[in-house]
Formats: sequence, C-alpha cells, structure tokens
Amino acid sequence: MLKDWFVQLESMYEQMVEWRRHLHQYPELSFQEVETPKMIAGILESYGVEVKTGIGGRGVVGTIRGAKPGKTIALRADFDALPIPDEKDVPYKSKVPGVMHACGHDGHTATLLAVAKVLCDNREKLSGNVVLLHQHAEELSPGGAIGMIADGCLDGVDVVFGTHLTSQAPTGTYLYAKGYAMAAADSFEIKIQGKGGHGASPHETIDAVAIGAQLVNQLQYIVSRQINPQKAAVLSVGSFHAGNAGNVIADSAVLKGTVRSFDENVRQHMEREVASIVSGISQALHADCQLNYQAGYPAVYNHPAETDTFIEIVKGFAEDSHVVEMTPIMGSEDFAYYLQEKPGMFFFTGARNEEIGAKYPHHHPLFDFDERAMVHAAKALVALVYHYAVEKEAEPALEKTV
Amino acid sequence: MLKDWFVQLESMYEQMVEWRRHLHQYPELSFQEVETPKMIAGILESYGVEVKTGIGGRGVVGTIRGAKPGKTIALRADFDALPIPDEKDVPYKSKVPGVMHACGHDGHTATLLAVAKVLCDNREKLSGNVVLLHQHAEELSPGGAIGMIADGCLDGVDVVFGTHLTSQAPTGTYLYAKGYAMAAADSFEIKIQGKGGHGASPHETIDAVAIGAQLVNQLQYIVSRQINPQKAAVLSVGSFHAGNAGNVIADSAVLKGTVRSFDENVRQHMEREVASIVSGISQALHADCQLNYQAGYPAVYNHPAETDTFIEIVKGFAEDSHVVEMTPIMGSEDFAYYLQEKPGMFFFTGARNEEIGAKYPHHHPLFDFDERAMVHAAKALVALVYHYAVEKEAEPALEKTV
Amino acid sequence: MLKDWFVQLESMYEQMVEWRRHLHQYPELSFQEVETPKMIAGILESYGVEVKTGIGGRGVVGTIRGAKPGKTIALRADFDALPIPDEKDVPYKSKVPGVMHACGHDGHTATLLAVAKVLCDNREKLSGNVVLLHQHAEELSPGGAIGMIADGCLDGVDVVFGTHLTSQAPTGTYLYAKGYAMAAADSFEIKIQGKGGHGASPHETIDAVAIGAQLVNQLQYIVSRQINPQKAAVLSVGSFHAGNAGNVIADSAVLKGTVRSFDENVRQHMEREVASIVSGISQALHADCQLNYQAGYPAVYNHPAETDTFIEIVKGFAEDSHVVEMTPIMGSEDFAYYLQEKPGMFFFTGARNEEIGAKYPHHHPLFDFDERAMVHAAKALVALVYHYAVEKEAEPALEKTV
Amino acid sequence: MLKDWFVQLESMYEQMVEWRRHLHQYPELSFQEVETPKMIAGILESYGVEVKTGIGGRGVVGTIRGAKPGKTIALRADFDALPIPDEKDVPYKSKVPGVMHACGHDGHTATLLAVAKVLCDNREKLSGNVVLLHQHAEELSPGGAIGMIADGCLDGVDVVFGTHLTSQAPTGTYLYAKGYAMAAADSFEIKIQGKGGHGASPHETIDAVAIGAQLVNQLQYIVSRQINPQKAAVLSVGSFHAGNAGNVIADSAVLKGTVRSFDENVRQHMEREVASIVSGISQALHADCQLNYQAGYPAVYNHPAETDTFIEIVKGFAEDSHVVEMTPIMGSEDFAYYLQEKPGMFFFTGARNEEIGAKYPHHHPLFDFDERAMVHAAKALVALVYHYAVEKEAEPALEKTV
Repeated sequence: MLKDWFVQLESMYEQMVEWRRHLHQYPELSFQEVETPKMIAGILESYGVEVKTGIGGRGVVGTIRGAKPGKTIALRADFDALPIPDEKDVPYKSKVPGVMHACGHDGHTATLLAVAKVLCDNREKLSGNVVLLHQHAEELSPGGAIGMIADGCLDGVDVVFGTHLTSQAPTGTYLYAKGYAMAAADSFEIKIQGKGGHGASPHETIDAVAIGAQLVNQLQYIVSRQINPQKAAVLSVGSFHAGNAGNVIADSAVLKGTVRSFDENVRQHMEREVASIVSGISQALHADCQLNYQAGYPAVYNHPAETDTFIEIVKGFAEDSHVVEMTPIMGSEDFAYYLQEKPGMFFFTGARNEEIGAKYPHHHPLFDFDERAMVHAAKALVALVYHYAVEKEAEPALEKTV
Repeated sequence: MLKDWFVQLESMYEQMVEWRRHLHQYPELSFQEVETPKMIAGILESYGVEVKTGIGGRGVVGTIRGAKPGKTIALRADFDALPIPDEKDVPYKSKVPGVMHACGHDGHTATLLAVAKVLCDNREKLSGNVVLLHQHAEELSPGGAIGMIADGCLDGVDVVFGTHLTSQAPTGTYLYAKGYAMAAADSFEIKIQGKGGHGASPHETIDAVAIGAQLVNQLQYIVSRQINPQKAAVLSVGSFHAGNAGNVIADSAVLKGTVRSFDENVRQHMEREVASIVSGISQALHADCQLNYQAGYPAVYNHPAETDTFIEIVKGFAEDSHVVEMTPIMGSEDFAYYLQEKPGMFFFTGARNEEIGAKYPHHHPLFDFDERAMVHAAKALVALVYHYAVEKEAEPALEKTV
Repeated sequence: MLKDWFVQLESMYEQMVEWRRHLHQYPELSFQEVETPKMIAGILESYGVEVKTGIGGRGVVGTIRGAKPGKTIALRADFDALPIPDEKDVPYKSKVPGVMHACGHDGHTATLLAVAKVLCDNREKLSGNVVLLHQHAEELSPGGAIGMIADGCLDGVDVVFGTHLTSQAPTGTYLYAKGYAMAAADSFEIKIQGKGGHGASPHETIDAVAIGAQLVNQLQYIVSRQINPQKAAVLSVGSFHAGNAGNVIADSAVLKGTVRSFDENVRQHMEREVASIVSGISQALHADCQLNYQAGYPAVYNHPAETDTFIEIVKGFAEDSHVVEMTPIMGSEDFAYYLQEKPGMFFFTGARNEEIGAKYPHHHPLFDFDERAMVHAAKALVALVYHYAVEKEAEPALEKTV
Repeated sequence: MLKDWFVQLESMYEQMVEWRRHLHQYPELSFQEVETPKMIAGILESYGVEVKTGIGGRGVVGTIRGAKPGKTIALRADFDALPIPDEKDVPYKSKVPGVMHACGHDGHTATLLAVAKVLCDNREKLSGNVVLLHQHAEELSPGGAIGMIADGCLDGVDVVFGTHLTSQAPTGTYLYAKGYAMAAADSFEIKIQGKGGHGASPHETIDAVAIGAQLVNQLQYIVSRQINPQKAAVLSVGSFHAGNAGNVIADSAVLKGTVRSFDENVRQHMEREVASIVSGISQALHADCQLNYQAGYPAVYNHPAETDTFIEIVKGFAEDSHVVEMTPIMGSEDFAYYLQEKPGMFFFTGARNEEIGAKYPHHHPLFDFDERAMVHAAKALVALVYHYAVEKEAEPALEKTV
C-alpha cells in the first residue's frame, strides 16, 4: 500500500517542479512572506485540507484528519528565502533582485505540498491526523517556529518530523544523526567605546583597535581552556570594524561573532565566559564595552526512539547504504524548538547532482538542488506517516482478527 | 629700521586678511592646486618679484634680490587645503564642498605675501637675496617640498625658515624646539589574506580576524620591548576592517597604522620589526600577509645654531615669556626635507583666540585661527631676514668705517 | 561452569591481597623492575605456566595451553610503580622512600596471577591458549608494551584484553567506552633562547619571558581555531620557567606541555601547528627556539566487536546497571599499542570505597583501592576467557548433538 | 691653592688603594654592615672629624667644621656590597663567599676618606662645613639614604654631591646629566592563584600559566599605549615561574618585574595601570591575583644650577672633552632622596681600563675598576668643596680688599 503512495508521489513530480520553480522565481525574505503563504494555503485548501494562516505571524498550518482516530503526526517545511542575489543562469532564476531561495526551502515547500496531496487522497486509510507545518522565517533569528508553537501549532501533536534538502550529499541518500544533530547557534556583538585621538598620542586615547585585538585574543581561551575538550564548542569573531584612518586612533570598534555548541551547559558556560572576558578586559584597559549576546536557535536534538524509527522505515524502501549516519552539523535550525516540545527528528535528504550543477554550498549565489530529491524527501515523509498512521494502527487490528 | 618694517607689516593687515579670506573661500586640495599658485604668482609679480611657477609640480618660487651681495635666506609657506567640510558659520566659509583650509595654510600664504611686499619695498637695504618658497601639497605624502627641492628651489640658499600658525597656543606667542621638533611619520597597511568559511568550522579556514588581532597585539612589543625607552617612538594601528557577518569567518583583513619617531635609527628599526612580525605571524598562522610600508616625511630637525638665532632675534622684539620652548611634536611636516638640505628651523606662531572661536584643533571642521597672528608670523620672518641681510652685513660695514 | 571458576577466584581472595600487599611494600619504578618480574615468574612457574622473562626488557609472558585447539586470548597486567611518596598510614605502606604503587598496578598483577591459577586449574576445559602479559613500565614513555610486542608477545594472539582498577568508580562497577577510550598523549618542551640584559634596557635584549608569553598565547589558537570543534583536542602548557630576578630580562625560558587527542589526523595536525607557531614566533621576535616534541602513547581504541562481546559477557554475571558506558578519558595508556596490533579492548574496574579511604585520585600520595575490586576484575577476565575458549567452542558441539 | 689639595690627594693614592682593597676583601651586604662603618668611623675620628655612627641604622656621618662660617656641603659615599660571588683572580679578591663589592662602593668609600683627610688638613681655609655621608645599604630597597635623612643627616646642609665610579667610561672622564639623570625603579610581584589539575582537563582548572602569559602580554600595552611616547618608561617582567610538569596544569604562577621612569606622573600612572590590568585579567579569567607593587628609589634629579656649577668647576681642571653629557640612565640610586631634600647633583666618574681588566659591567662576578679613578673622583669632590667653601667665600673678601 505504501508502494501505491509512492507511485502517486512519482506522478506528482512535474507538479512539484512547477511549484518549486514558481517559488524560486518569487522568493520572499524571512518575516516578509506574503505571496508564498497565500499560495500554500490556496493549494492546501484546494485539496480540502483545514488551513489556518497567520500562525505565529506568517505560518500556514494544515490539518488532514484521518478517517480513524490515532496519532497526530506533524511534518514541517519552511518557505523563506535569503538576501542573496541569484547568479544562476536558469529559466527559473529569481525575479527579485538580491533575493534568492539559496537554501532549498522552495523545495521543502513543494515536497510537503505533494505529500499533502497524497495523504489527502488516502485520508480514509489514516488512523490519526497529519499536521502540515508550513513555516515562515527559518533563516532569521528568532525564527518562525517559536511563534508558530506559541500559536498552538503543536497542540495535540504526538510526533514531529522534518527534512532539509542538501547539495552536500548525492540525490538518493538520507542522512541522520541520533541525539544532537545540529548545533545551538548564538551570536554576539561587542561595541567597544574607547576614546579617539591622534595616532601619535596613544596616551591621550583609549585605543579601540588594541582593545578589540585583546578581546579577540582572549576569547580564544574559552574554547582552548574553559570548555571540556570532549564537548564541541566554537567561538568565532567574524567581523571586526574600527577606525577610518591609519593615523587616527579609533574611538570605537564593533566585533561580531558566533558561538556554537550542542550541550546546553556548554552553551551557558560560553555565554558567561564571554561576558566575563568583555567585562574584565574593559576594566583592565578602561574601555566601555557593551556586549549584546543573542541566544539563537538551540541544538537540534533528535529523539533516539524516533530516530530509530526513521532508520527502520527508510531502510524499508531505500538501500541500506543510502541511509547514512552523519557527524552532527555545527549549523543550526529552528526545527530545534519543535523537538524541545515533542518527540521527533530532523533528517537531511541528499540533493547533489554535479551533472546538472547542483553542487554549490547552501547560501551560495549559484546554489541549486536536484529536483528529483523532492521525491525522495516526500517518500520518507509519507513512509513515516504510513508507519504511524497506517501500519502501527493496522497491526493490532490484524492481530485481533486472528 | 626693523621697527619701520614692522609698521609697514601692520599697515598690510587688512590686505593679509583679504588675501587669506579669499583663499579660504576657494581652497584647493594637495596636488590639485591651480588658482592658488596663479594668484600668488600674480601678486608677487605685481611687486616686481622674479617668479617661477610649476616648481616641483605646482610650487611658486619668488626671488627678491637685494641691492648688495650677501646671504640667501629662504622663507617657506605652504598653500594646500584639506578634504574636510567647512562647518564654520563665517562670511569667508569655504565655497568648495568638502574642501577646507583646516590647517591655516591660507594664513601662511597671506603672511608670506605681506612679507614679500615689505622686503620688496626695502630691497635696496638688503645685502643678499630672499627666496620665497610658496609650496603646494604639504598635506599629502610625498608632499610638495621634495619636488621643489629637486627642481632647484634651494639652489644658492644659505638658510631656510618656516612657520606654522597654531590654534593650540595663544596669539602673540612663538614656540620652538631645538634639535628634533617634529616627528618622522611613516605609515603602513597590512593586508591579511586568510581563507574564509563558516563560523562553525574554523578548522577549514585561516581566520583573518584572529590573525589580525595577533598582529595588533604583537606590534605592541616593538615599542614596549625593542626601542630604547629614552627614544620617542609610537606605533598605532588606526583601523582594522575585516568580515561582513558574525557567523562567517573573514577571509581577509586590512590594518592601517602610523609609526612616529625622531631618531633615524629608531625609524629604520621600527620598519624592520614591523616586517619581521608580519612575516613571522603569517608563517605561524598560515596567512598570506602583504605589508605596504610607506615612508612619510622625515623628522623636522631644527639646526641648533639657527634655532639660537631665532630665539635671540624673536626675543629682540617679543616678550621673553612669549618665546616658548615646546616639547617636540609627534606630528610631521615636509619642511623636514628643506632642513635635510640646508641649515634653518621651523617654528610655530600662536593663533589661538577663544573669544573669536579660534580654538579648535587643526583638521577639525570648525578650525579657525586668529588673523592677527599673521602679523606676528610675518614679524618673525622679516626680523630673521633683517638679521641675516641687514644687521649681519651692516656690522662689517660699520667696522670698516672705523 | 563459569560459576565454578568464580568460586575458585573467591577462594583466592586472601592470596591476592597478600600478593598485592607484598608488591605494595616493595614498589619498583618503570624500567627498573627487578624483584617484581622475578616474583611473578616464580608464581606462574609454580602453576606450570610456560614463562618467558626479560620480554621487551623486563616483561614476563606466561602461556597457558588449553587441552584443545582454539583461539589465543591475551590478558595484560602492568606492574610498575611511581616516584611518589606513600603517605598512607597502613600496614602495607611502601618501604621504598619516594616510590609507591599509586596507580594500582600491584592490584592488576595480583589479579592476573589469580586468574592464571584458575585457568591453569581448568586447563583441560580450554579450547585454545591464554597468554598472560605481565608488563613493566607502563608509567614512563615509551612504555613497556612496545618492546614486548617487538619481542613477539602478541605472536599468535587472536584477541587481547586488559583492565585498570579505578578509585573513581565504586567497587562492583565496570566502565567501558566503544571506539576511542583513552587519548593519545604527546608532550613537548620549548627552549627559548633569547638574550638577557638589564630590565631597564629591553631594546638590548631578546626577552625570553615576553616571547614565552606570546607562545603560550598563540598556542591556544590551535585548539580554538585549527582543530575540528567536534574532535577532542587539548594543548596545555603545564610549566613556564624563566629568569631569576624581576629586574633582569631573562635570556632563556623553558615551557613544557602536553597534547591530547584521539584522532590520529588531529594528533598529527597539532604537532605540525605547534612547530609552525614556535617557528613563526621565533622568527617574528628574533629568538632561537628549540622544540622537542615527544610522541607519547597513541589513543586506546576499543574494537567495536570485542567491546560488544565484553558488554554481553559482563552483563551475563553483573547487574546491568553496573556495566557503565563512560566518556572517553583524556589520560593515556600504552595498552593502545596492543590494540593497534590485535582486536580487543580495555576496560576499567571500579575500586572506590570511601569507607576504607579508597577515594583519592590516582597518582595521589594517599591513593588506595578497595582490594575486593581485584575479584571483580578477575571475574571479568576469566569470563572473557570462558567465552572465547569454552563457550564458543562448546556451542557447535552441543548443536551437533541435536 | 686647589692645586695643593690635588697634590695632597695624589699623595694619598697608595692609602686609598689600601683602604679599598681591604674593604674589597671583607665586603658586607646591605643592612648587614658591621665592620665597614666601624673602620670608616675609626679613620675619620683619627683625623679629628666629628663622627656619628648608627645613623639611619648603620650610616656614618662625619662633620668637618671650617674655620669660618659659610655653606654646608654634603658629600656622599655608599659602602655596601652585593650577594655576588667574586670570580676575579686578584690578590684582593673577596674573602666572603658569595659576597662581593661588585659595584665599586669600596672605591667610593676610600675616595671619600681621602677627601676627608685633605679637607681636615685644610680646615682653617674652609668657610663653612663639610658633611661626610658614609651610607650603608644603597643596593637594597628601601636603601640607607632614607633612614639617614630621617635621622637628620641633611640638617643644615646647603648642597649635596655624590659620585659613582663606572666601568662603562674610561678613567679620566666625568659624566653628568642635567635634570633627570637616573630613573625611578619600582618593582612588582604578581602571584597568580589559579586552580591546578590534569593537563587534559583544562576546563576543570584555572590555568595559571595561561593567565600569566596574558598578563605579560597585556602589561606591554602600558608602555606601548598608555604612556606619552616622549617620556621614558620601561616595564619588564624578568621572571615567570609556574608549574612542575608539562602534563599538570599549574595552580599558581609568580611573575616578577621592574618598572622604570623619570617623570613622577608617569611613574604613578604605570603603577595604576599595572594594578588595573592585574585586576581586570584576574576577573576576566577567574584567577585570584595578588599584586605586590614596591616603590623603589625615585628618579635622581640633578638640580640645574648645581649641575652647571659642577660642569664649570670640573672643566676648570679637566679637559673639556672629558666632561661628557650623558643620556639619563635607566638604573636607579637612592641618592635621589638627598636631591629631593636639598639642591645638588650626582655624577659618574669613569673607571674603565681594559688593559687591567676593568671592563666588566657592574654587578658582574668579574667586575673591577681602575683604582686611579678614585683620585679623579676625589678631585672633583674637593674642587666642589673648594668652590663653595673657599672660592665663593673668598671672592667678596677679595673684592673687599680692593
């Protein structure tokens, strides 16, 4: 029976491509999505899905109610784009200057829309419900997930799954990690207020460049000395800007950085240490430093039982060698919030195909993905629904008949 | 007789103000001066001064030949302006947007023009010649002096003097230093080429911010450890720019700085050490760093004998307490080149007058000076000419009569 | 039948204590062991074990040949002591001043001797052989293992196991890690040769303290910037010695440190980076730095299959909750060399008992362990032998009878 | 008449050598002088000098009262030795193991004793008094001067002079500086209390080596950024000691250093900045740092008028080229305290003679000086007394006789 669902999905491939390419040409930035949720809602409504819009701001939540009672399975696809110019030479190139679906969220959306169609068509076989989480603003902290959750999108949900297409693994593969899968990503900005002056008179100044250099230097000690070497932690200062001229001592400097970790204790420890160093160096060198530490998305923690289920289900239809355990990724995802609330997991679906140019990293102006991967992603999602809402329910029924 | 010259100077005050205010309204940037040298040449020619233009590019050299043979005394005034918007609210405000006489070179020019007039009017009393060095492009390295010297402006000159108006000392004062008076000012730019990457994957990058911080840090050791503590030396990194985002490791960084010193050995030592540190840190951390070290003007070295002469001459007409020994200044001047070629000295003429708002530092958008100071500057210059070309020559004459 | 072996082990407890206490009173330092191997050899020979001495220097290898052919299982116990004064107040306190069994190797030895007795007594039940690796010099790099292997101690061995008593886990527990269990531990010494001089004249010196400080500082970047944040790595500078007086600039400095890692690529990367930084900073600051980088023991890598076997076997007789997965340990062990050659694993046997004072960390002058733990360690070892040499062989036989 | 005094001094040369060599063989450490002051007092008393002993502890003050009233001139010679082994191979080598007159204070003493003899012999020609300050403990802060002053040794004194023999300038020369001549020398010790631990577990420690390195690094910024580049200032960390083993993180570290300056504001500024940095870094990195900042001798400030007098007087009998203006010395002297109380100056007397091995730096185990230099030193001192107590007084007398 799952095979039938797969056949239905395959038959929707052209449609998925069409949806995806439309979205690709009309990308919308995080928290500014207008037409995308409208289109999603329209399509879902056309299937008879119960649709709520404006969830958590701009999210669209569809509910497919099965014929019989059972579990409620949530599936999530994000739909926002990035402030990156599209430099690909393809017919479906972005028509919005400087904005591009450079992370594949257009593909996620098309995938989930096709999944929805198949599930709607098979509603009477479902024991339980499927909640479609079409999420806005994944790319921009604080992200759309947190607001959608606050608006109740997970109410009644038993288990939640999501996937991300990736140009870093070949089409046909699935990648997963058990436990921590993606990092918590926090960010900070340090504004150093010193006192400017002539480059020849440092003693009359408080040199923001020198103090900034000390901060960068000292911040290295957090990872090298203060965090358990067996726990992953990164602190990078990505930008440092101070001064306009070589012969004028800068009165101020701005440092921006990112902090990544998995373990929540490590995460909090790092935040404390950054504050301690900024405070201590400021005091030592008489600067007035303002630290703005922004908690980003927490770590994505894939629940072990649901991850085992995922492995079992996907290995049920894909080759074993295509279901790959991956090293946890230091990047972050606001899917983490769903997993703080409900059991579930987040996996990656390979979408690399060098022959058609789908090889550039995410967030690259030439990023693209193999559209066939949408079918693979969709298969995993419907197979999971089948497991929870058909198979699991079916078995006891069958047994009873014996 | 010097008194008569002073009376003549006083009578030219209105004219000096008019000249200065005209120049102030039509400032011209270094190496772009067109109308200013034309105006200077016209005025000098109207007195009958021998004028050569286009000296060293845009300089104007006038020669006043005395009636009798004797020493040749050169007097210098620079005439370029700065790329600073004029924010004063005065009738003579700059009419060129973003360009301003923010260092008083307009005053230097008006002063020397008045001096020229007085000397021309007293030509028959002069034993020897006076060379008027109206110099372009003092503000921008390599400066105008070096070219004017190459074009022969100091040929036959025995002694050279110059002055700078200063809003940092009250009108009526004269400031001097014997020996080193102003610093050598060199500059450097370090381009760090690392390898960018995701903020979460420092191990795949060569972090230009971290390397830049190490360089700033290490460069401090030059002054703290490698230069004789009794010799003045400064190295300041004035600007540090790297990276666009907190979560992306910067692939490159640019540091700009200034190096000041008096002693030529110290100067060369610092250049060598900057190169050594840039090279060593680059090697240690695998970056490709390009160092562009620009020698600026050398230190202004006031010759002791001519400085003693200056003190004696100026104390001959000004109150002793108004002739002030100053701490050498870490700023620089291309007058230094004249003093590398010929004996002479460079002094400062106080032009501060808070009541009329002449109190802002040089290069400040509100900079102005007390125009009365032009008369003080002119007096010192004509008194020096009087000393070399009248008094000194007169003495043997007198003796002969005995 | 394993139960019988356990009963036999229990009955040897007093003997194990006697052996252990004798060794504890007469500890011998690494590579200086004379009486300890003699005693071991004597006891083994008294059981009829084939004994070879002087293996790899001072090791003792015993072979127990089973009645039937089968696998060869090696069991290892180290027997050297440490240059630490024994500060315990017990009857079996060390009689050698400054030398102490402060890491429990006396217990390992007594354990393996008892295991040997039990196995000898059950020789006719064994299919295969047991090799007893009584190893000298585990505490001092390059360690005894490497020499014993070179002398052929692993020839014909199929699988190797070892255990370490630990005062950091309660008696009755077993701790294991699958894959990397203990770190590679390398060490380095940096001799900085600068140029001394008066504290007031840094410019005439090459300041070894300042350069040492820069090295310590710069070395932090290896872990913070150059190693994959998801791979464990530590670099610590443990000692820094330079100078005799505050007012004399030190001409030299000596830094000593340790480097820990699991992954061999990480290990080699760190060595390269230390060399690069030492070289670059030396060049930048004109010092002559000598780096002496000493590779220590590699990481202990527990083979997955043998670790699974260990878990299964030990859970066969111990409570599940007493068989604990541990975080890999950053300390090192030369057991690593055996595991580079043969499949096998290394586990820890809890020996903490606060009531009798067995609570101090290893290498502490008050270190002691709960002697009952020797029985636990011995049980795991004989159970493993039972598994490989009795059970595994027995099964087909049983099946055949069906 | 001064010539006669010089002849008398010359005749005492053998005696001076004898005294000096006796003292050289029986050196006494600072604040432990017993026999030296006894010998001095005995000699002075034998001339009929009024002697007070135990001044400020161990100082000897002699007063030579002239026949007529006049100025009171104080002359100072210090007499303590150093904890340095005498490695010279000379008949007068130190007989006290590990103690040596390695700075020439024995020569100062012999010089002043000879001066005293000449002045006593010419007492009736003196208008005014001469105070002989035989000072203990110059080498060890807080020094003997401060106590002798507290005990009144300068009461009634009008002017004070002192000299130091130097192996760094040839015999026959005199070196002086006007204004600041020697630096203020302060010292500091920083005890860093961190938390020790295993080298593989930095996160459980507070790494004293790493924190010490940061402090050394940060302290460089005081001179490079916080002190006027035209004012001399040095901060050197001379010793850094932490840790015993490479693989154990040090729980504590001790840094010792010296701070030199001339200007009292600079001096105080540096003390404040050291404290600020120690406090800030401690806070940033969670260490407990104790700073012990010891003010040493202040800067030696030679009063301009008395320095001019010295130049004039010495040039009266020595060749002009032998009276050399020197760069101020970064070393310190407790003669500074006398000059804080009274006008006067401190000069150096050349005592280098490579032919006889008098070429090693002061405080070197092979240090020696040319004993002929004692005559030169003595001449300058008696000439100064002659100037103040004979000549100056004589002039009016002479004028009166006209």
